[in-house]
Amino acid sequence: MMRVLVINPNASVEMSDVIREQLHAVARLDVVVEVVNPPGAPPAIESALDEAACVPPMLALVREAAGQGYDAVVIACFSDPGLDAAREATDLPVVGIQDAAMHLAAQIGYRFSVLTTLAHRSPVRERAALLAGLDRRLASCRPLDLPVLETVVNREQVVEKIVRIGRQAIEEDGAEVLILGCAGLGDLAIRASRELGVPVVDPNAAALKLCETLVGLRLTHSRAGLYRSRPREEAMV
Amino acid sequence: MMRVLVINPNASVEMSDVIREQLHAVARLDVVVEVVNPPGAPPAIESALDEAACVPPMLALVREAAGQGYDAVVIACFSDPGLDAAREATDLPVVGIQDAAMHLAAQIGYRFSVLTTLAHRSPVRERAALLAGLDRRLASCRPLDLPVLETVVNREQVVEKIVRIGRQAIEEDGAEVLILGCAGLGDLAIRASRELGVPVVDPNAAALKLCETLVGLRLTHSRAGLYRSRPREEAMV
Amino acid sequence: MMRVLVINPNASVEMSDVIREQLHAVARLDVVVEVVNPPGAPPAIESALDEAACVPPMLALVREAAGQGYDAVVIACFSDPGLDAAREATDLPVVGIQDAAMHLAAQIGYRFSVLTTLAHRSPVRERAALLAGLDRRLASCRPLDLPVLETVVNREQVVEKIVRIGRQAIEEDGAEVLILGCAGLGDLAIRASRELGVPVVDPNAAALKLCETLVGLRLTHSRAGLYRSRPREEAMV
Amino acid sequence: MMRVLVINPNASVEMSDVIREQLHAVARLDVVVEVVNPPGAPPAIESALDEAACVPPMLALVREAAGQGYDAVVIACFSDPGLDAAREATDLPVVGIQDAAMHLAAQIGYRFSVLTTLAHRSPVRERAALLAGLDRRLASCRPLDLPVLETVVNREQVVEKIVRIGRQAIEEDGAEVLILGCAGLGDLAIRASRELGVPVVDPNAAALKLCETLVGLRLTHSRAGLYRSRPREEAMV
Amino acid sequence: MMRVLVINPNASVEMSDVIREQLHAVARLDVVVEVVNPPGAPPAIESALDEAACVPPMLALVREAAGQGYDAVVIACFSDPGLDAAREATDLPVVGIQDAAMHLAAQIGYRFSVLTTLAHRSPVRERAALLAGLDRRLASCRPLDLPVLETVVNREQVVEKIVRIGRQAIEEDGAEVLILGCAGLGDLAIRASRELGVPVVDPNAAALKLCETLVGLRLTHSRAGLYRSRPREEAMV
Amino acid sequence: MMRVLVINPNASVEMSDVIREQLHAVARLDVVVEVVNPPGAPPAIESALDEAACVPPMLALVREAAGQGYDAVVIACFSDPGLDAAREATDLPVVGIQDAAMHLAAQIGYRFSVLTTLAHRSPVRERAALLAGLDRRLASCRPLDLPVLETVVNREQVVEKIVRIGRQAIEEDGAEVLILGCAGLGDLAIRASRELGVPVVDPNAAALKLCETLVGLRLTHSRAGLYRSRPREEAMV
Repeated sequence: MMRVLVINPNASVEMSDVIREQLHAVARLDVVVEVVNPPGAPPAIESALDEAACVPPMLALVREAAGQGYDAVVIACFSDPGLDAAREATDLPVVGIQDAAMHLAAQIGYRFSVLTTLAHRSPVRERAALLAGLDRRLASCRPLDLPVLETVVNREQVVEKIVRIGRQAIEEDGAEVLILGCAGLGDLAIRASRELGVPVVDPNAAALKLCETLVGLRLTHSRAGLYRSRPREEAMV
Repeated sequence: MMRVLVINPNASVEMSDVIREQLHAVARLDVVVEVVNPPGAPPAIESALDEAACVPPMLALVREAAGQGYDAVVIACFSDPGLDAAREATDLPVVGIQDAAMHLAAQIGYRFSVLTTLAHRSPVRERAALLAGLDRRLASCRPLDLPVLETVVNREQVVEKIVRIGRQAIEEDGAEVLILGCAGLGDLAIRASRELGVPVVDPNAAALKLCETLVGLRLTHSRAGLYRSRPREEAMV
Repeated sequence: MMRVLVINPNASVEMSDVIREQLHAVARLDVVVEVVNPPGAPPAIESALDEAACVPPMLALVREAAGQGYDAVVIACFSDPGLDAAREATDLPVVGIQDAAMHLAAQIGYRFSVLTTLAHRSPVRERAALLAGLDRRLASCRPLDLPVLETVVNREQVVEKIVRIGRQAIEEDGAEVLILGCAGLGDLAIRASRELGVPVVDPNAAALKLCETLVGLRLTHSRAGLYRSRPREEAMV
Repeated sequence: MMRVLVINPNASVEMSDVIREQLHAVARLDVVVEVVNPPGAPPAIESALDEAACVPPMLALVREAAGQGYDAVVIACFSDPGLDAAREATDLPVVGIQDAAMHLAAQIGYRFSVLTTLAHRSPVRERAALLAGLDRRLASCRPLDLPVLETVVNREQVVEKIVRIGRQAIEEDGAEVLILGCAGLGDLAIRASRELGVPVVDPNAAALKLCETLVGLRLTHSRAGLYRSRPREEAMV
Repeated sequence: MMRVLVINPNASVEMSDVIREQLHAVARLDVVVEVVNPPGAPPAIESALDEAACVPPMLALVREAAGQGYDAVVIACFSDPGLDAAREATDLPVVGIQDAAMHLAAQIGYRFSVLTTLAHRSPVRERAALLAGLDRRLASCRPLDLPVLETVVNREQVVEKIVRIGRQAIEEDGAEVLILGCAGLGDLAIRASRELGVPVVDPNAAALKLCETLVGLRLTHSRAGLYRSRPREEAMV
Repeated sequence: MMRVLVINPNASVEMSDVIREQLHAVARLDVVVEVVNPPGAPPAIESALDEAACVPPMLALVREAAGQGYDAVVIACFSDPGLDAAREATDLPVVGIQDAAMHLAAQIGYRFSVLTTLAHRSPVRERAALLAGLDRRLASCRPLDLPVLETVVNREQVVEKIVRIGRQAIEEDGAEVLILGCAGLGDLAIRASRELGVPVVDPNAAALKLCETLVGLRLTHSRAGLYRSRPREEAMV
C-alpha cells in the first residue's frame, strides 16, 4: 500500500474534484491518492505573485505529510511552485507535474509542445524547460487563452480548443507529443490523444506514476546538492 | 496483468540471470518480466561494432513481441542500441535503459554522473545525454575500467569500485545522483546508495518502471516524427 | 532627486547597516538610499525554504514603494528571491543584486566567477546564470564556506577567504572578474580588487547603479511578456 | 566631474550632431560628453570591410583619451568595431553600444529584439548576442531596410518604420523589449516606446550610463584574460 | 594514385551509376573512385530500420577495403549509417557524406539548410547537426517530399523541387548555403546553385574531397576516444 | 593548374619561409602556392591590437588576388584576422587556418584541443570555436607559453613542448585530436602525431586542402548573408 498526497495549491475545490476523480482512474489498485487544497491558498495560480502566495500554505502541508503516513507528495500546479523548497522540507519524494510531464514526453518523442493556459505564461514554461535541460526538446509553448479556473468548466469548448491548438503545434511546430499544461486539463488527455493521433501527456498522471516509481524503487531527491538545505528549526536541533 | 519483454542484446546468459532476478524483486506483483538473449547476439556490447551486430537479432524479437502478448519492451544494454529502429518496428512502448535512467536521475537531483564500464565509452554516454537534452545535467561520466562481462563476476570488487569512483563523482564533479551505466550492474544500486548517501539509479529498474507507467497510461512513442517510419514490408501492404 | 528602496529581505539589522553605509558611499549625490528589513523576515536566506519565507513580507514593502515616493527598488539578497513577483507587483524598476552583478561582470571580462557563501548554493547560482543567459560566461562558482550572517562579522578573516578563494578562481578557473555573491560582502569589493588585481563586483552597488540608469532613462521592466501579470486585486478592478 | 569621449567611428558629422544632442539630454549634470569623428573614418559602417577600415583611426583617438583627461570611452557604432582592441589600448573603461544595449535589455525583459539597419547585418547581430552569451534572450533581429546614413534624415518615416517593424517583433517573435540597432536611431527610443508600449533601448544612452556606472564604481575591463595584451610599444618599454 | 571506395549502402544500382558518373567528374585525375552496393542491402534507406539493416553488409565491405588496396572509404547515404562502427573496423579514413557536407557548408556561410527527402527524416538531420556541433549553424531542414529512389528518376521535376524549396530556405529561413540531403541528388548541385545564386553542396563530392584531403595529409580518425574500439576478433589476437 | 595565395599577415619573413617550405611538401602537384607578407604588417599577431593593425595591409593583397590570377586565398594566422572582411572583398574562396583546422579536426574525432601560443589567447580560441559552432567539440585550449615568433626558432624545444602539453590535453582533457594553433607550428604536426599517437592537425595544410576542395568543386563563400556586403567603391559603381 502506498499513499500519495496531491496538493492542488490553489483554492478551487472544483479543480481538486476533477483531479481526484481522474487520478483514481489511473492509480494502481494499491495506491491511495488524496487531493487537497491548502487553507489560505490563492484562487488560481496565474502569475509569479500567485506562486509566491501559494507556497507558504502548501509547505505547511508538505511538512506534515511524512508524519501523516504519506509516501510521496505531488504539487498539482503546472508551474511547480515551491518545488525546491518542498524538497528541502521533507525526505519524501516530491514531484512537480510540469517537470514530470516534460521528462515523460521527452521519452516518447523527440519534440514536444506544451499547451499552456495564458499567453504570458509561455516564458515561464520555456524557462522551466531550460532548467530541466529540455529546451532543445521543446517544440513550442502555445497558449489556449484560457484562465486556469475555466479549464474545468464548459469542457466541450476546452476540448475543442486543445484539439485546434494542438493540431497547430503538430503541423506548424513539429511537435510529436503534447503536454496539457494545467492541472485542470489532465483528464482530457485521452480524448485529445484520440482526436489528434499523437500521445498527449496528462501532467497529473505523469506525476502520480513517477511517485509510484520512486516509492517502488525507494528513491527520493538527493541531499547532496541543490536540495541539501533543511528547515532551519530542524537544522538547529 | 502486464507482460514486459526485457531483451539483453548480448549473449551472456549469466547477465540475463542477474537482470531477471533483480527485476523480479522490483516489478509490481501484476507485472510479468521475461529476460531473453537474442539468438546470434555478440558476446558483449562494448563498441559501435558490437552495437551494429546486436541490432538485427534484437529487432527480430521486437517484431514478434506484440504477437506474443507482451505489453512493452526493454532494451537492456546501456548504449540503447537500436532504440529508434525498435520503435519503428512495433507499436508497443520500447524503453532503453540509458535514456530511462538519465531522465529518472534528472528528476531527483540537478547534476548526475554516469559510472560507465570502459573509458572509451564516455563520449558515447555524453552524446546520448546531448541527444536526450540532458548534457547540462550530466556532471561527469567516469569509467569503472571494467569490461561488461566482468560486471557480473567478483561482485565485491565491483561494489568497491563503484563506491570509490562514485565518491569521486560526488566530491569532485558535483554529482548529486549516480547512474550505474551497465545492465549488469543494476542490482548493486541499493548497496551503492547506502554506502554513498546519494540516490543511485539502477537503469534496468528505471526502464521497467517506465514501462509500467507507459502501459498504465496507455502511452507509447509518437508516430508523428522521429519514429514515423514503419517496417518496409508493412508499409508496402 | 531619486529615491531608491533597498530591501534586505532577511531579519539582520546588522547586515542592513553594512549595506546602508556602503551604498551611501557609492550613490550619486542626488540619490537617496533607504535600506530596510521587512517585518517577519527569516533570520538569513540560505535555502529555498528561506526564499519562500522571505518573499511575502518583502512583497508587502514592494507594493507600497510607489505610493511612498520611491523611484526604484533593490532586492538585496544574492538569490534575487521574488524578483519576478516583485516586478509584477509594481511599475517601478525592481533590480536583483545577482542579476545586476552578473550582467555588469559580463561587460568587463569574458569569464567571471561568483564567490558564494555556502557550497550547496552553487547550483542555485549556476541556474541563475543559465536563466540570465550567462552560463557560458560563468567560469565557476566557488564557495567561501561562510554562513550568510558571518559575512558581516570578523571581517579580516572574511577578506582573507575572499582573496584566497578568489585567487583560485582566477588561476584555476580562468576567471577575469569576480562577483562577491552575498549582500553582506559588497563593501569588501574594493579591498579584494586591490589585492587580486582583477575587477571585483559589489552586487549591491551594481544594483544601485542599474537603478540610477533605469530611472535616468525612464525605463522599467516590460509588461509585454514574463512580467505581464498584475496583482489579482488590481486586475479585478 | 566625469568626462566621456564618444567616438562615432564613421565620417558623418550629422550623425555625431544627433548623438551629441541626444546624449546631452540624458547625461548626468556632472558628466561632460564629447562626440567626435576620427579623421579618415569611412562614410558609414555597413560591412566587415567598413569595420576594418574604421578601427585604426578610432584606436588613435582611444590611445590619447586618458592623456586628454577623459574618464571613459564609448564606441558609438552598433557593431562595436574594435572593442577588444580598444580595451587593450587603454585602461579607461571602453563601452560598445551594442553590448551595453543587449545587457540592459536583458535586465528588463526575458526576450528582446534588435531592429537593425540592413538585412545582411542580422548574422552580425546574432553572433554578437552569441558572444555576449545572450543568444537565448534574443527573440529576433529584424531589419529596418535602412542604410545607416538615412537613419538621421527623414525622421518621420524612420519612426514609422521602427513602429511598424517593432510591432512585428513584439507580436510575432515574442519580444518584450526592443533595441534600436544603430547609433543614429538612439534619440527615437522614447517616441518608439510611447507608441509601442514596451521599453525601447537607446544604445547610445545605455553605453553612456554604463560609463557612469563603471567610473562611479572605479571599475574597468579586466586585464587577466581576453584583454591582457597591451600595445606592443608599451609592452616593449 | 589514390583509390577511394564509395559504398552506396542501399540496393539501387541506378543510384550507384549516378553517383559514379558524378564523382568521376569531380575527382582529381590521380584518384580512382569505385562505387559499389553491398550484397544484401535494403532497397532504400529511409528509416532507422533501414539503417540497421544496411550496416552489417556495409561493414563487410569496409573490413576488406584496406586489404584490397583502397586508401579511403565513403559511406554514400546521407544518414551516415554505421559511420562510427566503420571507423572502428578499419584504420583507413572513413567519411560520411552528411558530416562532410555539413562541415563544408559551415565553412562558406553562416547558416545552411538541408534539403532532405522525406519530412520525417528532419529530426534525424537535426540530431546529426547537434552531434556535429553545428546545430546553431543549421538554418532549417526542409523536406522535398521525395522518396529516396525517386531522386534519380524524372530529374527535371526533382530540379524544379530543389529550386522551389531551396528558395524558401533562403528567403524564409535565412539559409546562405544549401546542402542536397541525399546521395542521389549530388549531381544536381551545380544546376541548383546556378539557379539559386547561393552555394549548393553536393554531399558526395564533399566526402570525396575530404578523402583526398585526409589521404593527402596522412590523417585518419583518432583511436584515442570515440573510435578506440576495434573488431573483437582483432582485439582478441 | 591552381594558384593559391597564402598571406602571412605578420612581418616575419622567416615564418613565411617555414610555411612555404611546408606547404610545398603537401600541395598537389598542380597547385602553385605563394606565401607573402603584406607591406606594413605588424611584427607578430598576439593581440586584438595586432589583429586590427594587420588587416588593412592584408586586405590590399586580397583585393588584388583575383586580378593577379589566383584561385584562392589563405589567411595564415591562427586568429583568422579579417576573414569576414576578406570574403566581402573578393569572390575568390578565402580560408582562415583556424576555422579550417577546427572543422577538419571535428571530422576525425569527437573532441579536439588547440595548443595555442600564449595563455591570454585562450578566450580568443574559445570564442572562435563558439562562432564556428564547435564549442562542444573543443576539449580544451592549452597554452604552449611561446611567443609567436619563437615558434620558428629552437625547434627541438618547441617540439618537446608540443608533445608535453599535447599529452596533457589527451590524458586530462580527453582530446582525441590536436590542432597546432599557430601558422609557425604547422610543419611540426607529423612529428607530434608520431610521438603522441593521435592525429595532429597542421592548420596551414588544412587550409590549403580546403582551397583545393573549394576550387575543385567551384564553390566559394555565399553572398546571401554574412558576406553580402561588397567594397563600397564597387557597390557605388
